[in-house]
Amino acid sequence: MLNKYMTMALGEARKSKKDIPVAALIVKNGEIVSLQINKREEDNQTIAHAEILAIIEANKKLNNWRLDDCDMYVTLEPCPMCAWAILNARIKNLYFGSVDLKYGAFGSAIDLSKLANSKINVKGGILEDDCNQLIKDYFENLRNEK
Amino acid sequence: MLNKYMTMALGEARKSKKDIPVAALIVKNGEIVSLQINKREEDNQTIAHAEILAIIEANKKLNNWRLDDCDMYVTLEPCPMCAWAILNARIKNLYFGSVDLKYGAFGSAIDLSKLANSKINVKGGILEDDCNQLIKDYFENLRNEK
Repeated sequence: MLNKYMTMALGEARKSKKDIPVAALIVKNGEIVSLQINKREEDNQTIAHAEILAIIEANKKLNNWRLDDCDMYVTLEPCPMCAWAILNARIKNLYFGSVDLKYGAFGSAIDLSKLANSKINVKGGILEDDCNQLIKDYFENLRNEK
Repeated sequence: MLNKYMTMALGEARKSKKDIPVAALIVKNGEIVSLQINKREEDNQTIAHAEILAIIEANKKLNNWRLDDCDMYVTLEPCPMCAWAILNARIKNLYFGSVDLKYGAFGSAIDLSKLANSKINVKGGILEDDCNQLIKDYFENLRNEK
């Protein structure tokens, strides 16, 4: 199941045109609630990371700012902004692919779940090679274009 | 000027109906770009803190996700979600009122400006007594209603 949802997120992330390809998927009781990609450049919005857009969509669909019993799958370890939004939304299980040593806020650069005193269950490294490759390809293409 | 803008933010925060009263104001070259209040409960949105809503409004008005040369005034020290959004938006000067010892992410609970290696200029305690009183009154009213 972890690989199935992460594969779906990876497929969505590949649709990114202008932005670093990252996708976030929210699942509740086996049903997909939201699936979004990073659109900071495309939407010209500071906060338009995949996780934030997925939370906004889920809030609307479930008509609740508390996303109880929801799991999130995201191709890259969340930054502090997204991490705190995830913790505030009460996401139950968080699964991420690539590790972000510079800004990852679930243990790599910092661990915000400790500050929140949250019981969130976090597991990184899901389809890690595929997630790493996706971002690597993006930056390689960017260099080739220049 | 600091007191003038913080007084405006305080006036806006007082309009809050269902939420903890917090307001954020963004100014660029002496002109007000955005002014928003916390609407997490009112809008049923996890991410609808005053700072996030003010950044979204400013992005749209300036048609840019980088809020260069913009200052923010906020009645309460930002949480980690808002702090990282503020740092990502390249806000130049941040002025806040109340200190948040539990979750304040500009030095009180944690200092995310260090993780971002940002040159943001931060000054807390602007009209601190008024900002503290506003939140104190909110929780007192909440207790009386129960």
